[in-house]
Amino acid sequence: MSTSMASSAEAGHHHQPVTNATPPHNLPLVLIHRLPQVDLSYKSWLPATKFLLLDPLDPSFSSSPSAQSLARSARVLVCIGSPPLSANTLDRYPSVECVVGSIAGLDHVDLSECRRRGITVTNAGDAFSADVADYTVALLIDVLRRVSASNRYVRAGTWPVKGEYPLGSKLGGKQIGIIGLGSIGSMIAKRLEAFGCSISYNSRTKKPHVPFPFYENVHDLATNSDALIICCALTNKTHHLINKDVMSALGKEGVIVNVGRGALIDEKELVQFLVRGDIGGAGLDVYENEPIVPRELFGLDNVVLSPHRAVATPEAILALQEGVRANLEAFFANKPLVSPVELE
Amino acid sequence: MSTSMASSAEAGHHHQPVTNATPPHNLPLVLIHRLPQVDLSYKSWLPATKFLLLDPLDPSFSSSPSAQSLARSARVLVCIGSPPLSANTLDRYPSVECVVGSIAGLDHVDLSECRRRGITVTNAGDAFSADVADYTVALLIDVLRRVSASNRYVRAGTWPVKGEYPLGSKLGGKQIGIIGLGSIGSMIAKRLEAFGCSISYNSRTKKPHVPFPFYENVHDLATNSDALIICCALTNKTHHLINKDVMSALGKEGVIVNVGRGALIDEKELVQFLVRGDIGGAGLDVYENEPIVPRELFGLDNVVLSPHRAVATPEAILALQEGVRANLEAFFANKPLVSPVELE
Repeated sequence: MSTSMASSAEAGHHHQPVTNATPPHNLPLVLIHRLPQVDLSYKSWLPATKFLLLDPLDPSFSSSPSAQSLARSARVLVCIGSPPLSANTLDRYPSVECVVGSIAGLDHVDLSECRRRGITVTNAGDAFSADVADYTVALLIDVLRRVSASNRYVRAGTWPVKGEYPLGSKLGGKQIGIIGLGSIGSMIAKRLEAFGCSISYNSRTKKPHVPFPFYENVHDLATNSDALIICCALTNKTHHLINKDVMSALGKEGVIVNVGRGALIDEKELVQFLVRGDIGGAGLDVYENEPIVPRELFGLDNVVLSPHRAVATPEAILALQEGVRANLEAFFANKPLVSPVELE
Repeated sequence: MSTSMASSAEAGHHHQPVTNATPPHNLPLVLIHRLPQVDLSYKSWLPATKFLLLDPLDPSFSSSPSAQSLARSARVLVCIGSPPLSANTLDRYPSVECVVGSIAGLDHVDLSECRRRGITVTNAGDAFSADVADYTVALLIDVLRRVSASNRYVRAGTWPVKGEYPLGSKLGGKQIGIIGLGSIGSMIAKRLEAFGCSISYNSRTKKPHVPFPFYENVHDLATNSDALIICCALTNKTHHLINKDVMSALGKEGVIVNVGRGALIDEKELVQFLVRGDIGGAGLDVYENEPIVPRELFGLDNVVLSPHRAVATPEAILALQEGVRANLEAFFANKPLVSPVELE
């Protein structure tokens, strides 16, 4: 997401007077937390007229004692992209009460440390959920109906030579197991219902008011599904959630679509299952060692490989930037945050 | 479709006693109409225990005067695949009252000649509509979100070298113009509504009970649409319906998805519009001279090329074969046909 956000807006780069001789104390202080490789284009959508942005990676910052002192009194920190946010970082900014995330995933933030310190956290809310859900549906149909593979067949000039490409498999009537029924998972379910699919799901806890069958463990969900869609958060508990046993339970015709994080699947095992034909196919948007994708997959026609692009569209990025501003404004106005994260 | 149907079932090829010394006159006569290149696998799903199948392309047929005479008294003709069915052919079978089609499109049948003769016609009904609709949605998302193109990017090993692939465009909120709101078009509309799209449509006449805005001409629909989806029948009136003017009206960001027939679009113009970037992209499942696809399209990343595979899945073919049998049984039982076509 980081560079996507960077690319989303003309990088204004109009450097802001962080170390102004007369600091505009009427503006609320906003700490910027980013990785060095993320550029300054956030300045084009976080208005300097509304916030005093304090960016420790800005060269002027470290040379300015007043900026450093302001940073210690800043009550809110905005993550640009997905920089790791650890206890160490938080120690440097003792006044932070609120961390505003700007991407959907929050695996870069030490959430339990935030909870321990009583820091509230917001994420991008629903800004990207629909985009991820749309892309997920496309990946699923693509794998079942072989869209990308048949596209290659046409472009290679094979159609007139070898004749009709094999038909794929029908989407309607399929049992779809969704792992992680949050905002994204719910939107995927809504879409797939319109195609006549049956939905069931796994998540940390059974959701009230959700009509779909709940499976307490992923193995049972896989046993009862034609396709597994993985869109849960990556945590210690979900690392390699999709292992050998789950893939065996899914079976030879089963399809996996992963739009969560690469490490939710034991990728080495997945590659073996796909190469041996022990599962039917996969639509993968994320990988354990991005941007490295296992080369064994490059030759497989039952696999769609996408470079972590389910995440967003330019339209959603504009909505996200609006969401970050809205959370900041709510925070400083002492109003309820727009998209707070529940810290367990 | 023809070879798809052929491939859908094990070709039994157990030759049936068309010229049996004692013809089983208790069985209803069913004329088979097919192209020579379509094989005999229909015999595996049109049961010889229920129908006496008369296939003029079967070598035994022409040598048997009794078969030829039976053919002249047959009241029903089944098209296997899409063989042309003209007045000349119908002249040879004067007793035919009903033509049973086995694919969704009926452009191979001279429908006005059938109407003139009082012959009823059935098509495959809804058996394939959902498959076409599913595939259409995948093509649309694929073009907008660049799924196939980014898949190529990954497989070419470019991701680690050149970095993030450009984000595509959001589906939600798009104005989708559907041309042809029959069974397939309606199913496409239902699906796209679940993605938050706005639907409008063009068809021969405004449909009662349809909530979507109706455009009497395609040009106005294009002007008011972000994407055009073409799923109407090919007739004299719809040949090259999508011409230069319509594409200009659709505009530089506009997307075309064609799952109808190739000749619904002026393909030469379409290629020019795509090459020049005068429309945004296209998802094409059909072409004017299949299986020949214009080579100029092979290098374009904003185009998804599919080899006429929206049409069906093995699951739907089984349903279709069931539909052909059901129409035959209804016909011989003097019951209403299952999927009659309205002949205007």
